[in-house]
Amino acid sequence: MVKLENMKNISLSDSVINLDHGDPTAYEEYWRKIGDRCTVTIRGCDLMSYFSDVNNMCWFLEPELAEAIKELHDAVGNAATEDRYIVVGTGSTQLCQAAVHALSSLAGTQPVSVVAAAPYYSTYVEETTYVRSVGRRRVGFRQERKGPCIELVTSPNNPDGTLRETVVNRPDDDEGKVIHDFAYYWPHYTPITRRQDHDIMLFTFSKITGHAGSRIGWALVKDKEVAKKMVEYIIVNSIGVSKESQIRTAKILKVLKETCKSEAENFFEYGHEMMKNRWEKLRGVVKESDVFSLPKYPEAYCYFFGKTLGSYPAFAWLGTKEETDLVNELRRHKVMSRAGERCGSDKKHVRVSMLSREDVFNVFLERLANMKLIKSIDL
Amino acid sequence: MVKLENMKNISLSDSVINLDHGDPTAYEEYWRKIGDRCTVTIRGCDLMSYFSDVNNMCWFLEPELAEAIKELHDAVGNAATEDRYIVVGTGSTQLCQAAVHALSSLAGTQPVSVVAAAPYYSTYVEETTYVRSVGRRRVGFRQERKGPCIELVTSPNNPDGTLRETVVNRPDDDEGKVIHDFAYYWPHYTPITRRQDHDIMLFTFSKITGHAGSRIGWALVKDKEVAKKMVEYIIVNSIGVSKESQIRTAKILKVLKETCKSEAENFFEYGHEMMKNRWEKLRGVVKESDVFSLPKYPEAYCYFFGKTLGSYPAFAWLGTKEETDLVNELRRHKVMSRAGERCGSDKKHVRVSMLSREDVFNVFLERLANMKLIKSIDL
Repeated sequence: MVKLENMKNISLSDSVINLDHGDPTAYEEYWRKIGDRCTVTIRGCDLMSYFSDVNNMCWFLEPELAEAIKELHDAVGNAATEDRYIVVGTGSTQLCQAAVHALSSLAGTQPVSVVAAAPYYSTYVEETTYVRSVGRRRVGFRQERKGPCIELVTSPNNPDGTLRETVVNRPDDDEGKVIHDFAYYWPHYTPITRRQDHDIMLFTFSKITGHAGSRIGWALVKDKEVAKKMVEYIIVNSIGVSKESQIRTAKILKVLKETCKSEAENFFEYGHEMMKNRWEKLRGVVKESDVFSLPKYPEAYCYFFGKTLGSYPAFAWLGTKEETDLVNELRRHKVMSRAGERCGSDKKHVRVSMLSREDVFNVFLERLANMKLIKSIDL
Repeated sequence: MVKLENMKNISLSDSVINLDHGDPTAYEEYWRKIGDRCTVTIRGCDLMSYFSDVNNMCWFLEPELAEAIKELHDAVGNAATEDRYIVVGTGSTQLCQAAVHALSSLAGTQPVSVVAAAPYYSTYVEETTYVRSVGRRRVGFRQERKGPCIELVTSPNNPDGTLRETVVNRPDDDEGKVIHDFAYYWPHYTPITRRQDHDIMLFTFSKITGHAGSRIGWALVKDKEVAKKMVEYIIVNSIGVSKESQIRTAKILKVLKETCKSEAENFFEYGHEMMKNRWEKLRGVVKESDVFSLPKYPEAYCYFFGKTLGSYPAFAWLGTKEETDLVNELRRHKVMSRAGERCGSDKKHVRVSMLSREDVFNVFLERLANMKLIKSIDL
């Protein structure tokens, strides 16, 4: 693996580039320019206690983070926050497990399956393998419903960027058993067409601003018992969540909220332009290639930007028209990607991160363009 | 529950005091005095990537934290660090689960039990209930060996402060299945009688310096495959560990190491004096009471301080000579403690934190002294 940290200082011409994971380093430049306003200073005697607010059911949630989360959702208009419990987690990864634990614990005595329509986020499968619900009931991952189940709905979807709704029919009393992962439901990736209002909604700091190293996610949860069980899971799993990360996230989310209506420093505007630009370049290469394919996304009216816009997902769901193992083909050209099979799809698809640093992204385009040529010669 | 944060500003006379958990706020005063040397400043564009060092198996471990950990153990002499893998976790809680996962995954196909001699840390039971090993094998908690097992050895022990060794006999090939939790094996709590050198050793930042809010723990692991499986667990569980917390921990551990040989600012000296003082006061009250009991600890030569010293554990394992439910008795006197039964012991014992703020500790002593009087009148 190549150390992305040093990417800028070394020649990329011969390096393997890793677009398998979604390390969102694309946004570093923006935060460098924003300067001191996002700087946090923490003294040796600060943030020592396990507790952030003993009057809150989620007693390890820093009150200023809770406030920043509500203000940001209100400003962006992507999710309802009123009459909900906020549960903070070590990334939305931990929260997804907490939610599966909570729903399966409250589901009675039968085994519970976790389902997601393919293609799905490959990590879901690994996560659910590790969760054990109380009372020795089993939690397993499947693609089709069979008995009681918890459905994971990721919208826009990881890996393919499509907008998703629940696909498993169920009676009304089962409504609570859906986990909505809205990691990418932010204006730089997709038009904000409505204020989401579901029972369990997951968000992650990593994909909004690119601060993946902080490991901060949050859940907006309607039902008190579900929220309680999620908190219980996080207590047993890690006795809460880093206070340093929470304080820093609160500060950055506040700056995000303050600037999100401005013209000069609007992060979402910046992110949107960057993503649009990258997608246009990628579509250009794919169009020229005659070998690759990409999904098409419909335009929609975005209430945040106040105009009709396209979708520019954080991952490209790259397909090939050839009968080939695409992940290996890319690897031969020193591009690491995630195999479609790991996402419940086939060998002809891979997931490629669109959030690498600019120079890495450009090397990717170059190699992709060359692959077409090599393929042609091969044929 | 009382908000400990505001404890200093409100009258304690009528408040419930919570000594159930081990919130180590006792050390705040020291870190306040140490001033700017432990202050960290983090800019908006810092620490954004998931990755800390892609050349390390534990790629989410910040190199400066790894270095600070090694230097501190070398300076204190409490654990061997050479030829070992360092795995960082969101507290030693997450690492304990990672270790149980690793050992049970590598243990073949049989179900695996987790054992610990009573009284034990109550959280162990909850943790092992949540861990599910790969391949649907069961992990359960028991107090006696029956089939393959993983033994948790906490020394000094939580809750009773005794020094512990493995109690489950096993052939040599099973040696790898012991997890040593050395959370309290530091000079302010117990004499450092040897440099520990076991296969899996867990440590936590929380109990050394009192920085519980940072949620940082580390494991020193001899076997590469075990370390790999632990890393794998932490990736699936939370995709790594907060970088902000790691950077701050590194800075504070470095200051700890620099000052640990000095006379004026030696943290361990400060901690030792405070704990000794508190224990002497508590033993005084218990001696006067004729109702309560405390364990006695032998003196030993401490290689760190270079003299013979006693043990001053982070928890008091308070017993009563009366036939009474001690946790309820204390609750009636507005002192929250952890029931002995939760630690695998009986109603006549409770675990009481010795690491509260000074004023809270003094209120505890006062109430304990009064309980004796009330008990006498009751009789």
